[in-house]
Amino acid sequence: MAPAADADVEVKSISPFGQARSTVEGTPLSKEELKLTDDYMRASLYLCLGMIYLKQNPLLKEPLKVEHLKARLLGHWGSDAGQVFAYVHFNRLIKKYDIDGLFISGPGHGAPAVISQSYLEGVYSEVYPDKSEDEEGLQRFFKQFSFPGGIGSHATPETPGSLHEGGELGYSVSHAFGTVFDHPNLIALTMVGDGESETGPLATSWHGTKFLNPITDGAVLPVLHLNGYKINNPTILARVSHDELKALFIGYGWTPYFVEGSDPESMHQAFAATLEKAVLEIREYQKKARESGKAFRPRWPMIVLRSPKGWTGPRKVDGRYLEGYWRSHQVPIPDVASNPDSLKVLEEWMKSYTPDKYFGADGKLIPELKALAPEGTKRLSAAPVANGGLIKKPLQLNDFRSYALDVKKGGVNEGPSMANMAKFLRDVIEKNPTNFRLFGPDETESNKLGEVYKASKKVWLGEYFEEDADGGNLAFEGRVMEMLSEHTVEGWLEGYILSGRHGLLNSYEPFIHIIDSMVNQHCKWIEKALEVEWRAKIASLNILLTATVWRQDHNGFTHQDPGFLDVVANKSPEVVRIYLPPDANCLLSVTDHCLRSSNYVNVIVADKQNHLQYLDMEAAIEHCTKGAGIWDWASNDQGEEPDIVMAACGDVPTMESLAATALLREYLPDLKIRFVNVVDLFRLIPHGEHPHGMTDREFTAIFTDDKPVIFNFHSYPWLIHRLTYKRKGQHNLHVRGYKEKGNIDTPLELAIRNQTDRFSLAIDALDRMPNLGNRGSSAREKLLNEQIKCKNEAFTEGIDPKALREWVWPF
Amino acid sequence: MAPAADADVEVKSISPFGQARSTVEGTPLSKEELKLTDDYMRASLYLCLGMIYLKQNPLLKEPLKVEHLKARLLGHWGSDAGQVFAYVHFNRLIKKYDIDGLFISGPGHGAPAVISQSYLEGVYSEVYPDKSEDEEGLQRFFKQFSFPGGIGSHATPETPGSLHEGGELGYSVSHAFGTVFDHPNLIALTMVGDGESETGPLATSWHGTKFLNPITDGAVLPVLHLNGYKINNPTILARVSHDELKALFIGYGWTPYFVEGSDPESMHQAFAATLEKAVLEIREYQKKARESGKAFRPRWPMIVLRSPKGWTGPRKVDGRYLEGYWRSHQVPIPDVASNPDSLKVLEEWMKSYTPDKYFGADGKLIPELKALAPEGTKRLSAAPVANGGLIKKPLQLNDFRSYALDVKKGGVNEGPSMANMAKFLRDVIEKNPTNFRLFGPDETESNKLGEVYKASKKVWLGEYFEEDADGGNLAFEGRVMEMLSEHTVEGWLEGYILSGRHGLLNSYEPFIHIIDSMVNQHCKWIEKALEVEWRAKIASLNILLTATVWRQDHNGFTHQDPGFLDVVANKSPEVVRIYLPPDANCLLSVTDHCLRSSNYVNVIVADKQNHLQYLDMEAAIEHCTKGAGIWDWASNDQGEEPDIVMAACGDVPTMESLAATALLREYLPDLKIRFVNVVDLFRLIPHGEHPHGMTDREFTAIFTDDKPVIFNFHSYPWLIHRLTYKRKGQHNLHVRGYKEKGNIDTPLELAIRNQTDRFSLAIDALDRMPNLGNRGSSAREKLLNEQIKCKNEAFTEGIDPKALREWVWPF
Repeated sequence: MAPAADADVEVKSISPFGQARSTVEGTPLSKEELKLTDDYMRASLYLCLGMIYLKQNPLLKEPLKVEHLKARLLGHWGSDAGQVFAYVHFNRLIKKYDIDGLFISGPGHGAPAVISQSYLEGVYSEVYPDKSEDEEGLQRFFKQFSFPGGIGSHATPETPGSLHEGGELGYSVSHAFGTVFDHPNLIALTMVGDGESETGPLATSWHGTKFLNPITDGAVLPVLHLNGYKINNPTILARVSHDELKALFIGYGWTPYFVEGSDPESMHQAFAATLEKAVLEIREYQKKARESGKAFRPRWPMIVLRSPKGWTGPRKVDGRYLEGYWRSHQVPIPDVASNPDSLKVLEEWMKSYTPDKYFGADGKLIPELKALAPEGTKRLSAAPVANGGLIKKPLQLNDFRSYALDVKKGGVNEGPSMANMAKFLRDVIEKNPTNFRLFGPDETESNKLGEVYKASKKVWLGEYFEEDADGGNLAFEGRVMEMLSEHTVEGWLEGYILSGRHGLLNSYEPFIHIIDSMVNQHCKWIEKALEVEWRAKIASLNILLTATVWRQDHNGFTHQDPGFLDVVANKSPEVVRIYLPPDANCLLSVTDHCLRSSNYVNVIVADKQNHLQYLDMEAAIEHCTKGAGIWDWASNDQGEEPDIVMAACGDVPTMESLAATALLREYLPDLKIRFVNVVDLFRLIPHGEHPHGMTDREFTAIFTDDKPVIFNFHSYPWLIHRLTYKRKGQHNLHVRGYKEKGNIDTPLELAIRNQTDRFSLAIDALDRMPNLGNRGSSAREKLLNEQIKCKNEAFTEGIDPKALREWVWPF
Repeated sequence: MAPAADADVEVKSISPFGQARSTVEGTPLSKEELKLTDDYMRASLYLCLGMIYLKQNPLLKEPLKVEHLKARLLGHWGSDAGQVFAYVHFNRLIKKYDIDGLFISGPGHGAPAVISQSYLEGVYSEVYPDKSEDEEGLQRFFKQFSFPGGIGSHATPETPGSLHEGGELGYSVSHAFGTVFDHPNLIALTMVGDGESETGPLATSWHGTKFLNPITDGAVLPVLHLNGYKINNPTILARVSHDELKALFIGYGWTPYFVEGSDPESMHQAFAATLEKAVLEIREYQKKARESGKAFRPRWPMIVLRSPKGWTGPRKVDGRYLEGYWRSHQVPIPDVASNPDSLKVLEEWMKSYTPDKYFGADGKLIPELKALAPEGTKRLSAAPVANGGLIKKPLQLNDFRSYALDVKKGGVNEGPSMANMAKFLRDVIEKNPTNFRLFGPDETESNKLGEVYKASKKVWLGEYFEEDADGGNLAFEGRVMEMLSEHTVEGWLEGYILSGRHGLLNSYEPFIHIIDSMVNQHCKWIEKALEVEWRAKIASLNILLTATVWRQDHNGFTHQDPGFLDVVANKSPEVVRIYLPPDANCLLSVTDHCLRSSNYVNVIVADKQNHLQYLDMEAAIEHCTKGAGIWDWASNDQGEEPDIVMAACGDVPTMESLAATALLREYLPDLKIRFVNVVDLFRLIPHGEHPHGMTDREFTAIFTDDKPVIFNFHSYPWLIHRLTYKRKGQHNLHVRGYKEKGNIDTPLELAIRNQTDRFSLAIDALDRMPNLGNRGSSAREKLLNEQIKCKNEAFTEGIDPKALREWVWPF
């Protein structure tokens, strides 16, 4: 028995049950169409249940027995019916209007819906021939689901037609927008779970319409699936008034159409009419904009589909609510193996879908139903856009060498590494007008990339004010996309590259942690995609981190966190790459390399301020190709064993490390110092653990096995130890980096607090060469005095003393 | 000259300029009140500019010269005026209605607004006596801002009255809700930036009203500050129609009141009337609910304040827009040191605030203005709630020993570690009815913590359906808070503990990465707070991670990520603690310890499934107190040097490592094996680098210096290397852990893929003891065969063979 309701709680309910109630009226389906549509849906739902429960007897030709069931029941039923429902109705319109469609499945664990549709479309059997369209294939199809060695309950990379896994919730709408940018004929029907809708990333992604151009882009058609429940809770959006819900979507800039109920016949008619209206509205807006050549922001249509969770299942089992309640979230009747009554309920329920009518004796879907699906690549599970690598075109890139900064002598002059690279990016945009976009959260200008606006401005479909003419750099058809939501711009970029294009995200380094989990999930997607034969490689996800920790002295402690690299380094070596170019020419070389690559997450870390330049273009290319190496011009151990190795990774660390080398050579001219720079971080890992990893021999040739190494690192120092713990000389490796010490400081003081400044590094070196005796102690004392003097000067004036840049520079 | 506007762009604008336009009419301020209010605001704005620009001549008694300016100009002007405006009007009502108020500053870099107010209130001089209320103190007050060794441009921990720094944007509203839960008399006026509003976390946090009880909780009064611009872009919400904006907030469940314009006089009247109406509505709703004893969800009032960015500054400088444009975001006139005309503009602008009228010759605010602020702890910058440690009451905790699981013999029986700990949590809730809450994103039941509902249900102010009586566990006054937004529940918890209470967040391990950046920011806050003398310590932020990687075999690859520990381990050792209790009694001991602690971020990792139990309560307490140690009962090296050390950290790893030990002892009975378990991860770090770190001597006593150690770790293996790289025996440390290998597998297969299963561990051990000769090879072969057999069995049936649990267990 259910417990009594709480006292004093007024039960209000916009019921998901009953005859359809909808904004749009109409009965567009003929009686025959209606019946076939419903049959198709029921065939699909039968498959969903089969996937969750059966390993044998797939067509229930025999009475259902425990031995037909999988030993461990896994999978999710809750959102399947609603998703299948929307899918089959989209099919009708794809055929009727020749739509290029994409189906994005947002609700958690809703894979049975899309996988069953793929099977019905024949695509599943095409790409996985052992899951053939017959009884035996069907059995294998059922058994593999949520089964060891099989497939998961999300729309994983193994799922034809999917580019959005949905394992972690919140990104369906931003992914959808990403896919339709520059795909003017694409409509991405996006099922949005009402659970997922509570996440932050989803809640703000509705604003994507302010960045969607009806001339050059396609359309996102969201279907908010109000099935009412999450795992164990009601959803917020299903428990507010109709007025609030409607207002919310008007407020987000959409025109919401409601379809609510559970009665199949009226629901089919209502949804068919509503979806058709939405599609026609989309086309009308696009036509208006395209014919006039004037873009505008329509209040795009979206649909609110309120249907019961676990729709079409038993309303109650054993006296407790199932359909229309959270209990239908996962395996709807869990005790079928132990309870004969439950087994009976399941059998009757499955048979109520009348699989025998839809699947012939051979197990093949009957032709009348087969005919409902679109054909060829119009089938949603065969949509080429969902296998973006297939339709990807290579980027047109100028020779990056032509953007080289002139560097006559290393370490003498400062140059604008980032602003210079922006010229290269500007021309990437110029030469790839429908194939590349630059993304960022309101920081493109601040990050010194403003040069790109000469090729294209920032896309903006919001209102315009007169001030915008004064350097606003806004345009309807911009290629630069900025919204103050790292989640949204990352989601757009992911959707954009997953659907076959290229892009780059620029962000302040400290706040990239906001999308740790999104990058994690993308890494997992591309890694698994490598195992799926029919998937073609997509462009890499390129992340440029700037406004880095060592120049966040004025923004303080909250803006100091270089730890994203640790998150990325945990992902599979097959998919992650990290580069820390020390200067402008290296940054160009690395960026070019990343833009040309496939199926990686590339992280580039480079500060946006002016910095010393070290390598001319030829030297930069050679250095970046090697990934790590000795800088002969900054070393004086040629032909001899060094006394010490000074190593650096990152632009600011390189400058400080070189300055430390200069100091040491000034005070102790006969010291043999080797200077090493690392640009490709994974060179440090043992060969065999990462494709870029050095052999021990290579490592020793650079770092030695037995000499002290003072390694100045951009990020937290422990990452270097983690990468090198297997190296023979690891005990000689003395790593400095950011140690979570900072506040409002000068750059020098920030470095001193973390012992990454030139003085501390030089002292570190001396401390590791005790045989220097008095000469060492005397140099040490001088260094300490210099450090204090510079620090005080900096502190008093609020700026770093210029003298620091005019150090005696022997190179 | 400004460039021409883009062609074909229709310029529409809801102007932030001009006479006030507002939803609420009225002129509640007398002429005198109005003048004083405006004077107070102008005095405050003068201070804001002084903070950005001046290091000398703080009252502009002398003509402004370059040498009075700071050498490096930093700080932000954009949102200052709007925030000051709201602040001073809130002051009036605090006095009029005796409100317990809190001011939360959401917009980025808006600290000058609140810091200047704190100075005017005298609080700043009270807590920092050298920033006295005189000319000299004012000079120091100005100079320290965004100056080395000084304070930042956010509402950092050094800021009196602040509990929300705002360095990373998006959490003002969730923090605000956190502060008002169980503080029935508190009104948290929350300035929300329109930039910040674009973030995902902020966009969903508006739904907090569905969890706010008007009887037991206070109120959040958001003032959305539509100042129109971010760093370099317009904001979305300032560029949609009035209708959409209004609909959006109605949709979110609020009643929006608009105040728009720039004319000071009419703006003061409009805002005074509007804010008063909002406060009275809040009080009315609370009265209605409290007198009737019936809670409900009102459409709480919120205010949209549209005023120009950089309000009260020059509209144009040098022909380019400043006030009302993004150029006023940071230092509004940057070239004052190099351009005498600009210096003049600045001087005239600063003097236009007539500081000489507000600050006497001694530099003290004149009494007429002083009188406008509330007194004592009613002053917003002296609000006790913003220094939560001051008002924190200790938790009432039962003796956790009384919840002990009976463990007669280690490693024999399984038990429900998590469900058992839930009983302890249940009673924490029971005994602390206004002082503790449990937070989670829809997973409390799934995480086996459902027992807590016996003490209190889930708070829910949304609508109720009849199904809810069937195990819905919803209530108006619940103590468990669930919303499918890790951002929101984390924000609530942070706000709740920052304002003096206690709590715990439970979450699936894989998705805790969603809040990496929030936890980072909280760590930074509590670390800096330690340096602020007047701040009292708050309760620790407790995060319980469950549904861990080793039991995410069925959810697949997307649900497998134990890397949150790497993110936490990068934070300062003063504030982070990580515990991996191996069994139920250790989990109890650790949880009790965490709940009693202050100013930490405690992370507890424990799986939710039934697991083998090892320690009785006394042994568990001893083990957890030590944090790491030898399990004598599982070792056979007593009194001798071991041949090998088998070590584990985490519950599943401990089970596998013990089973490996059992296998080894079965096959090679004379092998001397030491078994080590680590529960407090930071015990591994060298003493001196973390307060919990072991000395080298302690480390050697446990792990030896020279024997092979097979260390089975819960998370990515590299973290252990990173923590131990300085230890003498580190080259003997062979760590296994999750290596990003997984899919839909059985638990056994998942372990095998990552080489953390019993067979692989035993083989690892053998491989490190080559002197075993043939006996070793023969055992190795047996192990491999067993592994294959078990794997196949698991694979075929879809479940782990039961036999694995009935292993020969010699302990």
